[in-house]
Amino acid sequence: MIIVMKRYAPKHEVEGVCDRLQENGFQIHLSEGIERTIVGGIGERTNEIVDLLLTMPGVENVVPIVQPFKLASKEFKKEPTIIKVASNFIGDGSLQIMAGPCAVEGRDKFIEIAKLVKDAGATMLRGGAFKPRTSPYSFQGLEIEGLEILKEASQITGLPVVTEVMDPRMIEVTAEYVDILQVGARNMQNFFLLRELGKINKPVLLKRGPSATIEEWIMAAEYIISSGNPEVILCERGIRTFETYTRNTLDLSAVPLIKDLTHLPIIVDPSHGTGKWKLVKPMALAAIGAGCDGLMVEVHQKPSEALSDGPQSLTPENFADLASKANALKNALA
Amino acid sequence: MIIVMKRYAPKHEVEGVCDRLQENGFQIHLSEGIERTIVGGIGERTNEIVDLLLTMPGVENVVPIVQPFKLASKEFKKEPTIIKVASNFIGDGSLQIMAGPCAVEGRDKFIEIAKLVKDAGATMLRGGAFKPRTSPYSFQGLEIEGLEILKEASQITGLPVVTEVMDPRMIEVTAEYVDILQVGARNMQNFFLLRELGKINKPVLLKRGPSATIEEWIMAAEYIISSGNPEVILCERGIRTFETYTRNTLDLSAVPLIKDLTHLPIIVDPSHGTGKWKLVKPMALAAIGAGCDGLMVEVHQKPSEALSDGPQSLTPENFADLASKANALKNALA
Amino acid sequence: MIIVMKRYAPKHEVEGVCDRLQENGFQIHLSEGIERTIVGGIGERTNEIVDLLLTMPGVENVVPIVQPFKLASKEFKKEPTIIKVASNFIGDGSLQIMAGPCAVEGRDKFIEIAKLVKDAGATMLRGGAFKPRTSPYSFQGLEIEGLEILKEASQITGLPVVTEVMDPRMIEVTAEYVDILQVGARNMQNFFLLRELGKINKPVLLKRGPSATIEEWIMAAEYIISSGNPEVILCERGIRTFETYTRNTLDLSAVPLIKDLTHLPIIVDPSHGTGKWKLVKPMALAAIGAGCDGLMVEVHQKPSEALSDGPQSLTPENFADLASKANALKNALA
Amino acid sequence: MIIVMKRYAPKHEVEGVCDRLQENGFQIHLSEGIERTIVGGIGERTNEIVDLLLTMPGVENVVPIVQPFKLASKEFKKEPTIIKVASNFIGDGSLQIMAGPCAVEGRDKFIEIAKLVKDAGATMLRGGAFKPRTSPYSFQGLEIEGLEILKEASQITGLPVVTEVMDPRMIEVTAEYVDILQVGARNMQNFFLLRELGKINKPVLLKRGPSATIEEWIMAAEYIISSGNPEVILCERGIRTFETYTRNTLDLSAVPLIKDLTHLPIIVDPSHGTGKWKLVKPMALAAIGAGCDGLMVEVHQKPSEALSDGPQSLTPENFADLASKANALKNALA
Repeated sequence: MIIVMKRYAPKHEVEGVCDRLQENGFQIHLSEGIERTIVGGIGERTNEIVDLLLTMPGVENVVPIVQPFKLASKEFKKEPTIIKVASNFIGDGSLQIMAGPCAVEGRDKFIEIAKLVKDAGATMLRGGAFKPRTSPYSFQGLEIEGLEILKEASQITGLPVVTEVMDPRMIEVTAEYVDILQVGARNMQNFFLLRELGKINKPVLLKRGPSATIEEWIMAAEYIISSGNPEVILCERGIRTFETYTRNTLDLSAVPLIKDLTHLPIIVDPSHGTGKWKLVKPMALAAIGAGCDGLMVEVHQKPSEALSDGPQSLTPENFADLASKANALKNALA
Repeated sequence: MIIVMKRYAPKHEVEGVCDRLQENGFQIHLSEGIERTIVGGIGERTNEIVDLLLTMPGVENVVPIVQPFKLASKEFKKEPTIIKVASNFIGDGSLQIMAGPCAVEGRDKFIEIAKLVKDAGATMLRGGAFKPRTSPYSFQGLEIEGLEILKEASQITGLPVVTEVMDPRMIEVTAEYVDILQVGARNMQNFFLLRELGKINKPVLLKRGPSATIEEWIMAAEYIISSGNPEVILCERGIRTFETYTRNTLDLSAVPLIKDLTHLPIIVDPSHGTGKWKLVKPMALAAIGAGCDGLMVEVHQKPSEALSDGPQSLTPENFADLASKANALKNALA
Repeated sequence: MIIVMKRYAPKHEVEGVCDRLQENGFQIHLSEGIERTIVGGIGERTNEIVDLLLTMPGVENVVPIVQPFKLASKEFKKEPTIIKVASNFIGDGSLQIMAGPCAVEGRDKFIEIAKLVKDAGATMLRGGAFKPRTSPYSFQGLEIEGLEILKEASQITGLPVVTEVMDPRMIEVTAEYVDILQVGARNMQNFFLLRELGKINKPVLLKRGPSATIEEWIMAAEYIISSGNPEVILCERGIRTFETYTRNTLDLSAVPLIKDLTHLPIIVDPSHGTGKWKLVKPMALAAIGAGCDGLMVEVHQKPSEALSDGPQSLTPENFADLASKANALKNALA
Repeated sequence: MIIVMKRYAPKHEVEGVCDRLQENGFQIHLSEGIERTIVGGIGERTNEIVDLLLTMPGVENVVPIVQPFKLASKEFKKEPTIIKVASNFIGDGSLQIMAGPCAVEGRDKFIEIAKLVKDAGATMLRGGAFKPRTSPYSFQGLEIEGLEILKEASQITGLPVVTEVMDPRMIEVTAEYVDILQVGARNMQNFFLLRELGKINKPVLLKRGPSATIEEWIMAAEYIISSGNPEVILCERGIRTFETYTRNTLDLSAVPLIKDLTHLPIIVDPSHGTGKWKLVKPMALAAIGAGCDGLMVEVHQKPSEALSDGPQSLTPENFADLASKANALKNALA
């Protein structure tokens, strides 16, 4: 990292900075200009040392040079991480399509939609068992019963299943029922949850927080990996901006950026990313153009009767059309 | 709420909407124009019913008319909520100043700073015992030992103490040690945590999430209140915007807005809200101009040796100056 | 529009609102609930009347029902607008690829790049003659000489040419030299400029402002159309968000939204939209997935010697690859 | 500036960068680590040279060290700039209060409100003569007639007057009538306009663009100063964020930041900054707490009959209360 000293900072302040760096195991490269001295520090950068330097007398600015993430970075591991889930592979160049309703609303209904999305082209199932919502007055999910239904649907269709977990106390039980555990956007920086997910041996799907920078998102993945679980799949699902026509602004540039900065696979959720079913298909196809490894799409038998997220859910017919176009596009890119 | 039908929507689609509203206990007011019919629905609006209507054929838009929050609203309770903490009152027109370091770093050091901030004008103590940070490679807090130190400092100085809790499993033990439990910005929509905090009988300080709208923030307060705990204090601490000179953009208009929409007290945290100690004093004084009930300020003996948040921490001398100016300003407003 | 009265607003306040509406030619539909009266006003909504109503006693909120734009809307004109430029058509289902350097830097250099991009697949040329930049210390463009070079390159290659105009005094002369006049993102709400562009009979390419909502952008198009020029092409080029890895966040959901709300063609500029050449190709392909009518791409012989925007410029080789993949993808979608 | 080379970048790439720097008059400081070389370049940084370096082989990143602005910076001029307008001084520690309606709507009405705001505590008058608005269907201002009215009101009250100018062709005539020329938020980066304003000898009030960073805003001031006019007053009026309760988010941290980075005076416009009259007073008082040199406030005899911006306009009575509290607060800070 680079420590920029103030103009005409006196010698003892420069020395103070150098001492502090050396105490922390940094090598030093000094660059003394006429007006300004610049100190290069080579070593293990942490937030703490940056903060400490920023408060020292004579320091104008501290400029990081290398990325703060290590294990998730391409510098650490060149080959892309490929994650095997049952007989599916995420990140191997194929297109994984995860589909299903926002929430598991009942056994028969879920089994039905699971079969429908399989026939329409889904390669994995999704469905929420725990649904705490913005309003305390809304439907909150079937919980354990929902997990049981997910497992049964998976057995019937042969498709692996992904579901969200929010409470660290629920990780163990959830991992018994499903193939991939999802961290929702609101929990992306719930470090207690991330740490616990680092201790299981199932893949984790990590959604981007609505106000998380690319760097903060990768750092959340780093949290899981450094806690022991290298199988992290990233999922772009829109960021919060000033635009109000869409629920979120789907940031598809995240796809090539993640591919450039990390070795992790990345999928895209155009349902939450737009909040409007009419935009789901074009944005799913856009995501494929951007190079993603998979899609996560909300599908419901009757969106107008869904207990949650109806406005962004596709009918099975619209989903079948999306899946077929998506595969055609993926092939055209190959 | 208002349901705007599409232009020339056929009669049976309008009737479908009316039926759905009536099934959900809404009264109906129909307004048929030449081109367009508008349906007014009077009743208990939930996210579900809005979502359901949005997916019905013929519906162009659903426009909420009344706020989604109830218990937190001024319509529900006209008089401002005043919260008693030991012998302090938050929301009674006085100015509460909560001060202390970001993290509790050790017993002697914390007792020392506690005495210093008391002498300088603080009316309450703050300090973090649990410090999970963006990077897994950073200092994570003293945990239970930190809680013990907080309690001791409170007993020595006679000042009540506030600290953050993140893990629902830690609420009970934390409530034994401190006077106010804080929900951090990253956990504002951690509904499991909010629900549990609704079951204790200590006040909760609810920080605004960096990408939370005013409405979402009030809904999070509603979550706690509707779970049984009416003692919620809101804390503005900056939102995420495109500006990078400051860590966050402190949205002081939240202060008069919260006062207009709810009966809850609101304080301001200019330390996290700016991320730079030089801006803390002017923004604290600005917050008082805006009408806040209190301030939360990070103070450290030696910011350049703080284990976290040094760059935004004041020295005890600067804090004393802030506290004295803050009180002068509050008096000038009275 | 809907006027929501305050709870228990007295009768004379409701009547005041009704009178005001009638004076302005609105029809009225009254919906009196027990707690609250809602007034529907059917007529020509303007910003003025909304503002006036918002300030009247007893009014809590005014909710627009129909879009503020008319001439640009699909309700006004169902068939998509197809714009003919020389022998090219924008908006007819084909893919137009506009390419060239950020700035015209000299005659020979521009003629050379014009031939190169034509061979690589460009269907139109782009290049800036006027380049006022953020810093007063930067290169400002060749001005009239640049326009002459653009025209010559167009004659040599047979490709139409597009260039930006900023100063209303320059519109006339620019229209003599080029085929499409571009409004830059910073001038999207320069209403003097828009009004003058409404008076010419050449197409206008209207870039989205970095902080413009979809609605404001369409209103800017409405400005040009209502001033007399119906040939408006919209261009998404990224909005300002908190993310800093990219210069802007390319909002591709604008593509299907514009297609849904208006009859105007829309192209995408992934060069300004990302600011990084590595992201240009994936985001161009994503834009095609989203359904755009064309691309605008910065290409330079030697990006490392460009006088402006080098970091986001492609080499002719990379551009050729992009153009070929782009056409393959467009075909796969057909 | 610092040029960070890629890991293991070969020697000839490092030399290429050094050559390029030397050609551009930079001094070089080389810092060769084991994995990575860092090049410090000391000289006149421009956007062009940064862009050029970013595109060179082997370069990973270019990190600016010093601010891009010079003439506006405190390093260039330590003492605060004080601007004399008639017998008023802006930036000398006093509080200037500019007040008046959004638009000049007619002679008698404006003279009346001018007298009212003077009596209520205004030290300067404001009023718009040119009012191009977001919608082409809205009131567009009285133009030259409006300027004449402004001048007459100024002569009658003895208060200097400020008005906005948008069209470069109108600068000369506007400067004949008013004391301060205002650049509106939408024109902050209209460089043609800024350049022309650099040639007059009247002060310029430069509003911050709704999506402008602090740095871009100061660079716009630099544009005016470097074109010959050092009398620039900055005006914070809110930035665009995701929050929708307020029209903009008033970024009051801009006040101490501008004071820290530049020698220019800064005022605050809480009317546009919030869009709601109820928030104007608390945010005006907050602005004073933050240390601003003045306020710009919209006042109208009857906000409910204003031709524009009624919802954010104060009545004369409310303005009188604001002005008196504002002065009390300013005194308490002294």
